[in-house]
Amino acid sequence: MLVASAGTAQAEDGYDLWLRYRPLATNDAAALQRDAQSVERRDDTPTLRVAVDEVRRGLAGLSGRASADGTSAHPVVLATGADRDVAALRLPLATLGDEGYLVRSTTFGGRRVTLVTANTDRGVLYGSFAMLRYLQTGGSLASIDLTSTPRVKLRVLNHWDNLDGVVERGYAGQSLWDWWTLPDFRDPRYTDYARANASIGINGTVLNNVNAKAESLTPRYIAKAAALADVFRPYGIKVYLSARFSAPIELGGLKTADPLDPQVAAWWKAKADEIYRAIPDFGGFLVKANSEGQPGPRDYHRSHADGANMLAAAVAPHGGIVMWRAFVYADTDPEDRAKQAYTEFKPLDGKFADNVIVQVKNGAIDFQPREPFHPLFGAMPKTPLMIEFQITKEYLGFATHLAYLGPLFAETLASETMQKPGETVANVVDGVAEGHTLTGMAGVANIGRDRDWAGSTFNQANWYAFGRMAWDPTLAAAPVAREWAAMTFAPTPAIVDPVVGMMMGSREAVVDYMTPLGLAHLMATGHHYGPGPWVADLKRSEWNPVYYHRADKTGIGFDRTKTGSDAVAQYAPALARRLADPATTPERELLWFHHLPWDRRLASGRTVWAEMVHDYDAGVDYVSTMRRQWALLQFSIDAERWTKTATYLAVQEREARWWRDASVAYWMSVNHLPLPPGVAPPAHDLAWYKALKVPYAPGNPQ
Amino acid sequence: MLVASAGTAQAEDGYDLWLRYRPLATNDAAALQRDAQSVERRDDTPTLRVAVDEVRRGLAGLSGRASADGTSAHPVVLATGADRDVAALRLPLATLGDEGYLVRSTTFGGRRVTLVTANTDRGVLYGSFAMLRYLQTGGSLASIDLTSTPRVKLRVLNHWDNLDGVVERGYAGQSLWDWWTLPDFRDPRYTDYARANASIGINGTVLNNVNAKAESLTPRYIAKAAALADVFRPYGIKVYLSARFSAPIELGGLKTADPLDPQVAAWWKAKADEIYRAIPDFGGFLVKANSEGQPGPRDYHRSHADGANMLAAAVAPHGGIVMWRAFVYADTDPEDRAKQAYTEFKPLDGKFADNVIVQVKNGAIDFQPREPFHPLFGAMPKTPLMIEFQITKEYLGFATHLAYLGPLFAETLASETMQKPGETVANVVDGVAEGHTLTGMAGVANIGRDRDWAGSTFNQANWYAFGRMAWDPTLAAAPVAREWAAMTFAPTPAIVDPVVGMMMGSREAVVDYMTPLGLAHLMATGHHYGPGPWVADLKRSEWNPVYYHRADKTGIGFDRTKTGSDAVAQYAPALARRLADPATTPERELLWFHHLPWDRRLASGRTVWAEMVHDYDAGVDYVSTMRRQWALLQFSIDAERWTKTATYLAVQEREARWWRDASVAYWMSVNHLPLPPGVAPPAHDLAWYKALKVPYAPGNPQ
Repeated sequence: MLVASAGTAQAEDGYDLWLRYRPLATNDAAALQRDAQSVERRDDTPTLRVAVDEVRRGLAGLSGRASADGTSAHPVVLATGADRDVAALRLPLATLGDEGYLVRSTTFGGRRVTLVTANTDRGVLYGSFAMLRYLQTGGSLASIDLTSTPRVKLRVLNHWDNLDGVVERGYAGQSLWDWWTLPDFRDPRYTDYARANASIGINGTVLNNVNAKAESLTPRYIAKAAALADVFRPYGIKVYLSARFSAPIELGGLKTADPLDPQVAAWWKAKADEIYRAIPDFGGFLVKANSEGQPGPRDYHRSHADGANMLAAAVAPHGGIVMWRAFVYADTDPEDRAKQAYTEFKPLDGKFADNVIVQVKNGAIDFQPREPFHPLFGAMPKTPLMIEFQITKEYLGFATHLAYLGPLFAETLASETMQKPGETVANVVDGVAEGHTLTGMAGVANIGRDRDWAGSTFNQANWYAFGRMAWDPTLAAAPVAREWAAMTFAPTPAIVDPVVGMMMGSREAVVDYMTPLGLAHLMATGHHYGPGPWVADLKRSEWNPVYYHRADKTGIGFDRTKTGSDAVAQYAPALARRLADPATTPERELLWFHHLPWDRRLASGRTVWAEMVHDYDAGVDYVSTMRRQWALLQFSIDAERWTKTATYLAVQEREARWWRDASVAYWMSVNHLPLPPGVAPPAHDLAWYKALKVPYAPGNPQ
Repeated sequence: MLVASAGTAQAEDGYDLWLRYRPLATNDAAALQRDAQSVERRDDTPTLRVAVDEVRRGLAGLSGRASADGTSAHPVVLATGADRDVAALRLPLATLGDEGYLVRSTTFGGRRVTLVTANTDRGVLYGSFAMLRYLQTGGSLASIDLTSTPRVKLRVLNHWDNLDGVVERGYAGQSLWDWWTLPDFRDPRYTDYARANASIGINGTVLNNVNAKAESLTPRYIAKAAALADVFRPYGIKVYLSARFSAPIELGGLKTADPLDPQVAAWWKAKADEIYRAIPDFGGFLVKANSEGQPGPRDYHRSHADGANMLAAAVAPHGGIVMWRAFVYADTDPEDRAKQAYTEFKPLDGKFADNVIVQVKNGAIDFQPREPFHPLFGAMPKTPLMIEFQITKEYLGFATHLAYLGPLFAETLASETMQKPGETVANVVDGVAEGHTLTGMAGVANIGRDRDWAGSTFNQANWYAFGRMAWDPTLAAAPVAREWAAMTFAPTPAIVDPVVGMMMGSREAVVDYMTPLGLAHLMATGHHYGPGPWVADLKRSEWNPVYYHRADKTGIGFDRTKTGSDAVAQYAPALARRLADPATTPERELLWFHHLPWDRRLASGRTVWAEMVHDYDAGVDYVSTMRRQWALLQFSIDAERWTKTATYLAVQEREARWWRDASVAYWMSVNHLPLPPGVAPPAHDLAWYKALKVPYAPGNPQ
């Protein structure tokens, strides 16, 4: 037995993500050796070079044999449409745009080849990854014919990474960016990050937290960002920076950051010029303004459009853009927190510069396990809106709970705005609804320096799904999960079926054991880990869970109809009418929109109270079932990843029960109702749950 | 070409440390296959099991072939002296104690075997690692005959790891301990940490920062520590905790932490009992008391002995110990900071309980690039003293500067106390001087979650050297460096010679470009990165570099003779006399002990000023030379480790010049002297250097 590499731990530690390229079954590997004897590149650009490297790496791994150097009878050929031989094939490249690709088995220069082509080298890179994905998920090259074009232009990760290495709401270790050793040291991991992103079509990354420090715009940090941009560039990934709106004061010594002050505009223009000298393809700025204490144009009685347009003018000469967040959260108590963004931004429709895109969270509060889609989607037809999802699970159990977010993404994207017939959030996001060409999807990254990048194997699926669904927001969650599971574990139904089975209901399970029936924001204070529905003593009303659930002896839920905050009126009239009536409101969003008596009957025949208890138990049961399903996979999955997941599922089961018991105990203290027959009482009394503390929860910078 | 593992990056990323076990040269590998056909274990304990696993892993890697299962004609046999066949050999095991080992090629049960034996399974484990080290550094099994017994009992790492994951003075990423997922998840990395430590004889680890939080003594955190103890136990490593002296107040609700209060003593006794229920072999407490704001017995007008003995009584029934730090740093300005520990502790000699050991830093200030040995060594004959080194390079350029600390450790340990004829610091530390059996050496760990553990490949050498020299404080730095280089790169002179050449002068180079001629504490404030000799505005006098260098127009240096603080009187009379006179003071410590005129002539014929400039230039030149030497190794060392080191050497060269230029510019502003002829002026003026800021320096918790 040869063990030349016995000294090296060959552990499956998750580092390889879905790009594992482990050997295919014998017959498939032999076919691949026959069909892909070499990899040829018909031009020389940095992007084509990394594409060829990736295809070589992938084919060697999958086929078990390194491809030959030089030419061969049956090569894989990477070439753009500018290549004379490709042009001669008269392929339908015109519709591919500058990022789409075509992969086809064809005859080329007299040889049977697998051609990976596109209008640009970036398209060829995406085609290369698509071909590898096809092979990793059971496809063969013999009759390959793939074509795809992204439906969304900006597919961007938002890293909430602080300059001291702490990742806000990060549960996978420190920031991937080692600012201290940049720009000198370019960790090979930066390249692997770019490979992973390119493999799922992500083409932009915002390096620093939206709660930004001005220092990130100093020459010292621009040089560091430029080093990362150099690493990412061949992979088609642009670098963006979060900009602190008050930087002209903090760095420029100005007295004001008023966006209409010419000195301020000049400062930003000079700063943009400076950045573009270091990063010629710099993407632009992301801005969180006048929200949660961040400075912004409202400090000077200017509008968000005034602020965004001033920054947009600074980057426009360089082709840059501004992503301006609609997540506003004023310093004073709002009428209804869910209404703030719409109230402030709707009147600004049509007032933003061409290179501004407004970034709107998927829901109107803040990345809850479930939220109705944000009412701004469809309500600002003259303004490009990009959607912001949170990939990191701030409110869904951090890294240790298994919750596949594909269904959350898909549910929001498939939501009908009812502003126009058939219009969905996806149509708004991909620009089809109003013909916008500046389109985008942002995901708050769940990536850190942990060896497995995302804190757990299954969290990798959320990064993966975000990228795939940003490329095509009409993709369903299940096929994306199947791809991921096949690539991450093995492309056999015996593994993929149960894994996808676990994944598909996992987010709903979290909803069930944390926030059933449309409840929201019941988490403990600050870190948002564990239950805190009883919290009522925080300074501002909307910081308290009781603000959101409004439970009392008679009922529960937030009345957002006319008798309450009338937030439903922010939706299209037809939808608003539907949501105004509990009977026509989806039960999954019921208590988001309505305050209802505990004893109101639901479709199941159960009362609201009994339905809540039922959901809590269903959530806990689902996790128990996942544990059993995972246990059956013990000998199908490598020990290291299996064990870590098994451990985390045990944590999740314990904590799902904690959520269920603490919540039930609290509601009973409010409604004084008995438990439905046959239901287990909480393991402890309410005081016990209230006394629990989780010190040093990660992701919660002080 | 078979590339079964092509999908896995087989990168040399430093994770394997010195336990790489890469294949030996063909002939050596063949010999090893012949001489070690199987690995047999003559008893079944967790420690013997991990020892066998390690030997199998090592032999498979080194020989290129997995050893056979079952028995063979020429096995490696792991057995304690209790084994009947081993006993029959009548080996000289008596002197090995409970940690020493013997590895010998011998005839055993009729077969030619390599026997790894000891009185205990821990000894067998150490012998196993010694055998592997011997093979990794060019030895062969044919006539192996190794025997060694540690000269120091407690060989302990001190992790200054906070519960939020920040490592104080850590430059290798977050804390290795993921407190959030403990005790559930036992990261395989914890096991590799234990393997690495056991391989160099480290047998204890203090998990949390000496600036301790009381929470680390709560049930929640005791359970987490217990999980780590379970992982470490088979490797002979005991877990210790830093104890916050005021915990009885913070956790116990007591009104006082007075060590003579019976309630306080009872609280600690109960706490110790609780810990020992979770960790039966818990090592004991490390305490930093009344230093830099930490609480302690002096708060109650009790002595350090009172505090230590009270804690010692709590752990004594369980066989635990207390490591009580002598690093005291009062809240009020001292006469001379260097004198504080001696002043406070010397009178307590003989007053500590039997299971207390006083932990004394190598020098009297704080881990400077060079300090004279601490005057307490040799001055407290009735008290066991352990020495504390800082492996992490707080004051020596963080992770990016190459500074091999073996010479620093060796220089201190070899220092003659002159309390008795021939007595060295090593004799005090290993207990020979006064016949103490409780002996110890502590190293402040440089380990974090970075892939290469220590922030750079060469930093791994400092971890390695600490362990080896704690096992035997009389080891010289060069042979330890040779071992490390052979194991870390390859056992060929073409690599080992230049690598060891670089290492051996590297710490002196840091001394030269930072703090020549015995200067100290000239670093920038807080984070201690980069030069700050001009800093004079901090609240307390001894926080300022000017306090330490005392430079003015006429001279430079801290007068610690009778005309100054008389700190020299803390040394043995013969040594004090020598240090009282600049002419008999080692030049390397000259300005530590003396304030001298800038124009005083030194042995070289140069003035103090010219010598300082000469040293600065020598330091920079040494780094330039290291860069050139490393460049020559480009094709002898794997790309990933070579590139990172090359990058860091470039950083170091730039920053060595920064140190040199900034320091020279500052001294010239004080002494108004011209530069010696032919010397290059600083690249910028002093104001430029003073204006430099390094925000977000790692390892400096706010």
